[in-house]
Amino acid sequence: MTVTDVTLGVDIGGTNTKFGLVDRGGKCIAEMSIATNAHEPAENLIARLHEKVEEMRRPLSGKYELRGVGIGAPNANYYRGTIENPPNLSWKGVVDMAALIRKYYDLPVAVTNDANAAALGEMLYGAARGMKNFIVITLGTGLGSGIVAGGELVYGADGFAGEIGHTTVDPEGRECGCGGRGHLETYASAGGICRTVSELLSVRRTESELRAIAPRDLTSMMIAGAAGRGDGIAKEAFEFTGRILGMKLADSVAHVSPEAIILFGGLAAAGALIFDPTKRSLEEYLLPIFRGKVQLLPSGLREGDVAVLGASALIWNEILKERK
Amino acid sequence: MTVTDVTLGVDIGGTNTKFGLVDRGGKCIAEMSIATNAHEPAENLIARLHEKVEEMRRPLSGKYELRGVGIGAPNANYYRGTIENPPNLSWKGVVDMAALIRKYYDLPVAVTNDANAAALGEMLYGAARGMKNFIVITLGTGLGSGIVAGGELVYGADGFAGEIGHTTVDPEGRECGCGGRGHLETYASAGGICRTVSELLSVRRTESELRAIAPRDLTSMMIAGAAGRGDGIAKEAFEFTGRILGMKLADSVAHVSPEAIILFGGLAAAGALIFDPTKRSLEEYLLPIFRGKVQLLPSGLREGDVAVLGASALIWNEILKERK
Repeated sequence: MTVTDVTLGVDIGGTNTKFGLVDRGGKCIAEMSIATNAHEPAENLIARLHEKVEEMRRPLSGKYELRGVGIGAPNANYYRGTIENPPNLSWKGVVDMAALIRKYYDLPVAVTNDANAAALGEMLYGAARGMKNFIVITLGTGLGSGIVAGGELVYGADGFAGEIGHTTVDPEGRECGCGGRGHLETYASAGGICRTVSELLSVRRTESELRAIAPRDLTSMMIAGAAGRGDGIAKEAFEFTGRILGMKLADSVAHVSPEAIILFGGLAAAGALIFDPTKRSLEEYLLPIFRGKVQLLPSGLREGDVAVLGASALIWNEILKERK
Repeated sequence: MTVTDVTLGVDIGGTNTKFGLVDRGGKCIAEMSIATNAHEPAENLIARLHEKVEEMRRPLSGKYELRGVGIGAPNANYYRGTIENPPNLSWKGVVDMAALIRKYYDLPVAVTNDANAAALGEMLYGAARGMKNFIVITLGTGLGSGIVAGGELVYGADGFAGEIGHTTVDPEGRECGCGGRGHLETYASAGGICRTVSELLSVRRTESELRAIAPRDLTSMMIAGAAGRGDGIAKEAFEFTGRILGMKLADSVAHVSPEAIILFGGLAAAGALIFDPTKRSLEEYLLPIFRGKVQLLPSGLREGDVAVLGASALIWNEILKERK
């Protein structure tokens, strides 16, 4: 009987922690989810995670061999194996996540943020297979990014590279969660497009079904729905969002000249509504030598699987480098 | 007698082509310059270059062995070994520079643009020795840039990465030589600061010695001189330039998280006049996790040598990779 190598991919979110066993081809053999219980210490989460993983592995024993553990989490540092002051968790200071995992598994462990993990997921299993230069943009509550240059994820000097969401669109612009002003993610994200709707409702006199929704309850899905029904404000909000996103992605292309930019996350699920204006604006702002060369692609992974596949790709990538 | 390995570094400019023999440590054994004669075909330049290089090597024979040729030139493509529609030369279309050189030298040849070559020069011999993540910005007539991530120069999908000069500051802003609007190099370069002086002279009523100089004759050195004598317009021009440069460099840091940014070229020679406001603005616009971590440094190479040392570093870098 052949034994298949698998890695454990773990995605630690503010509410739930998802994890799964993934083979070299990106097939998820088994997947589970537990509550993160963000107020508890990290040790408790990892103890509960270990218990559930063992439960999951039991019926598979003999058929699958665990080769490593990859973790995707906010504010994760690849170089140090740590999670540092994560925004949605109560863990204070620096948590040595790699050490916590190694208490249970004597295996290679790697840690990075969710957007970097997603980039590796796309490279190993998704839309970026065979590419050596590309960018992944996650359009969720905020805007995350992972940059691959020359076949390697760009971690930078301190392990925190790839913060395209915090580049400046307008130095006098919208307040950002990081304390800055006018950052890209305050415009181009699920949260950003909701703010754009508020702004447009203040500027325009046009009727809109979005005037009936409290700003606190508004979601990018509702805006996409309204745009689909022909709502002018909703359509303009997507145009505006794509225009700003395309302009700033042209800056990113000028830095690293990617073959493709992959968009995923809640806002990317709006499809042509966001892809079309982004693509138009990107081409308009690109330096002539880059025009017509950069593909704007949807993720090649299933939305619900991206985080776990990405985390598993992170450790597969390490193992494959070792084997070279 | 020991024989020292050297490489030939060649910097092809619009007016002059400079070249030199450089050892592994960055010592320039011999250096010369010939007129580029930009209207003549590239073949002629390389034939004349070969003649002069042989003249230069003759008295050194037996002591130095030539190991490779590195070329820095505008619009040079590292992957293809070509120079493509260079802006200041009459060579039309694509010139296969690597093939032209190999007609004379059966040695490794590599080609890249001058800013990328400068980045490798800083890494091998200059201010970036020992660094694996840094950016070099050349503040000449325009703004060139070379990005090193994880110890490798970022060439991108097509070999043209590192065009930070053509990121957008203001989409409605100044006309750029590339056809775009409001690009960083229209503000932050020797040419850009002259345009800023014109703008300030139009806005302010203040007296200034720069009012006596025709815009066509104005240079960044004159502005630096005036600032040194306390001229308010000149000082404000440096403040404004540094403010914009710092803001956009914060975007670059968000992409690749460098350990240092090295400024060189005519405008960087103004020293504290440009470094101080750039540093202040960079820190202000940096995401908190990057603050206080990124050094802003002058070049570690002599201004006149940067281009030749950079071109030689390009081919040394290839040779050293081979030897690994």
